Amino acid sequence: MLAKFLPYSLLLLFLTLIAHAETLPVPANLIVSSSLEGQALLLGADSRDAYFALADNFVTQKTQSFCGVASMVMLFNAMQLPAPDVPEYAPYKTFTQDNVLNASTEVILPQDVILKQGITLDQMGALLAVQPVAAAVRHASDGSVDRFRTEAASYLGQPGHFVLVNYFRNSLGQQKGGHFSPLAAYDRETDRFMILDVARYKYPPVWVKSEELFFAMNTKDSDNQDKSRGYILISRK
Amino acid sequence: MLAKFLPYSLLLLFLTLIAHAETLPVPANLIVSSSLEGQALLLGADSRDAYFALADNFVTQKTQSFCGVASMVMLFNAMQLPAPDVPEYAPYKTFTQDNVLNASTEVILPQDVILKQGITLDQMGALLAVQPVAAAVRHASDGSVDRFRTEAASYLGQPGHFVLVNYFRNSLGQQKGGHFSPLAAYDRETDRFMILDVARYKYPPVWVKSEELFFAMNTKDSDNQDKSRGYILISRK
Repeated sequence: MLAKFLPYSLLLLFLTLIAHAETLPVPANLIVSSSLEGQALLLGADSRDAYFALADNFVTQKTQSFCGVASMVMLFNAMQLPAPDVPEYAPYKTFTQDNVLNASTEVILPQDVILKQGITLDQMGALLAVQPVAAAVRHASDGSVDRFRTEAASYLGQPGHFVLVNYFRNSLGQQKGGHFSPLAAYDRETDRFMILDVARYKYPPVWVKSEELFFAMNTKDSDNQDKSRGYILISRK
Repeated sequence: MLAKFLPYSLLLLFLTLIAHAETLPVPANLIVSSSLEGQALLLGADSRDAYFALADNFVTQKTQSFCGVASMVMLFNAMQLPAPDVPEYAPYKTFTQDNVLNASTEVILPQDVILKQGITLDQMGALLAVQPVAAAVRHASDGSVDRFRTEAASYLGQPGHFVLVNYFRNSLGQQKGGHFSPLAAYDRETDRFMILDVARYKYPPVWVKSEELFFAMNTKDSDNQDKSRGYILISRK
């Protein structure tokens, strides 16, 4: 084994260099959650109830426009909502990216549209309401970073409560465009939130500063009449 | 919100009762990893390097016989091995349950056979060797619980090192038959290992006693000439 021939510090350096060889480089303003620094943030986080429920249900978005759909699947399974059938798993039931869209969501936003251009913040609020879920939509432009920090940290620290963020990746130095993913935890000391990024083929989960995340949410979405992106506070109805 | 009208302890009780409404009841000998007790085990675990890499890459087995295939996908992505193309994600690459089986694995064990009867411990050792992976196969009947505990805890506490277990679910009080899933962490004080169960539609991740897990691995596999199940120690070659 390599570990036998290299001092531990050198091994760590080597592993850092090869880490995420298949994903994109993470900009320096973000902390990779599986790094030693990221692990310490989770272990010391003030609000992390959401993490444990969501990590058990982490999925990769099925197509490059399905970030919102993948996020819904994670949230609904984490909330243990009554789930639809899955032929392959019978008699067991669970939400998947193949069954979470149904006749009710089709009326709100056809799957064809989602495949082409994804989901806007307001459309997401409407789609979530198809399930027994209370979903409070917050456009960043209507609020402030302080309000976001207070509301999101409160939700992440209560069992059964979740926060979904809709942000502009470019503002964080990431590639690229609008994106949805669930938040998992908040660390007060560093004022950072953990994003469980559903584009796992592209980026690992990261810790981001509240202000930077709010700035990335406070961006105009041309698919939503130039209203700003934002966040949704979610709990079981 | 419910939280406003109920004392916190009552809310917790309520959430416990609705928890895993869609999955099977977890037998009392196992500790659900997202329970308060399970969270505390992870936070205090002695060996948990594997957890952080695997949790970021947790997947649900695609069919009821694909536990081994799903486990391979998690391990290869966690190890950041050079990944195959995925048309939907181009230009990004990642391992999925649709691309991890290839012409090389087909020679070792055809996908048709995996779909019908899954993978044995020895077949898994051969399948892993298709990738740049060192895989040491251990039949439980050739060893002891002490050897298993020592080897597995050591691997789980080293970056880039992993343990895959092949066990008989019935021995743990679960439904049912032979199963593969990666281990994620070890807690010395309670002598328990955490299993990231890939049948997420059926069971959540759990913490299991070393002796019970070893007993469940030390069972005869009729698909493998009645040799015992066991575990595989895995690292990058």
